[in-house]
Amino acid sequence: MTSARLPAIDPRDVPASRGSNYPDPFAARVAGRVKRRIGDALGLKNFGVNLTMLEPGSQSSLRHWHARQDEFVYVLEGELVLLSESGEQRLTQGMAAGFPAGLADGHCLVNRSDRPAVYIEVGDRMPGDAATYPDDDIAAQARPDGWTFTNRAGVPY
Amino acid sequence: MTSARLPAIDPRDVPASRGSNYPDPFAARVAGRVKRRIGDALGLKNFGVNLTMLEPGSQSSLRHWHARQDEFVYVLEGELVLLSESGEQRLTQGMAAGFPAGLADGHCLVNRSDRPAVYIEVGDRMPGDAATYPDDDIAAQARPDGWTFTNRAGVPY
Repeated sequence: MTSARLPAIDPRDVPASRGSNYPDPFAARVAGRVKRRIGDALGLKNFGVNLTMLEPGSQSSLRHWHARQDEFVYVLEGELVLLSESGEQRLTQGMAAGFPAGLADGHCLVNRSDRPAVYIEVGDRMPGDAATYPDDDIAAQARPDGWTFTNRAGVPY
Repeated sequence: MTSARLPAIDPRDVPASRGSNYPDPFAARVAGRVKRRIGDALGLKNFGVNLTMLEPGSQSSLRHWHARQDEFVYVLEGELVLLSESGEQRLTQGMAAGFPAGLADGHCLVNRSDRPAVYIEVGDRMPGDAATYPDDDIAAQARPDGWTFTNRAGVPY
């Protein structure tokens, strides 16, 4: 532990968690994603903030967009490729991206480099959200107790 | 302009704005604060994200806390002093702080160093917010068209 005390933290003191709530076979694509939930550690409720590391070859999520929640990312270290409907673009240290709620522009970050990439991600917690995945046969609905996943026809995974 | 295109941006392409909506004489304390409203530039609505630079001698705000909105900061460059009810602490690159809605812990950042400090700040936009200032005779109420300031007795500035 560092000497930081609330309302401050050193993110290195926050546990790192790997893994995903995606059903198989989709979870494998984010197996190299390690999150530190620093917003939760600070007691924040209205939005989440993660300090996230992507290993080479991993991606941040399936390409998706949210119906009601905004998302934001800021690149701290390394290099990422942003996939969206406007094509691919390289994000380097100090660049940011944002994904407004309801904008049907599926997006994700992929680490195609040979070193880890680190970014901050922020998302609010507007109730009644849903996620749409343009490339994969999966759909997600936010419930009060978490996300539920079905295929596009509505069959639970 | 850099080559970044939405949904990505290079924050250097976002206009920098100086100044505050604080009434006199309080505005002088944040005169060395320069914000780039990158969340707005990305089209985000549920929360705001600023890339903010504090010149030596300036501070982020009056010491305050919010009734309904969460706040988060992440230090990118330089060194800041966080003032809160738990005393002073030094925040260096990579440290974070968070201020949960409704927690009566007035806080602000002060740049006591001899070089600029840069941080990301995030705040949601929960309606019906109010800000309380434990050190100063000022109070703020969020209205649909912006913040209004009075003294503690309710007399408008």
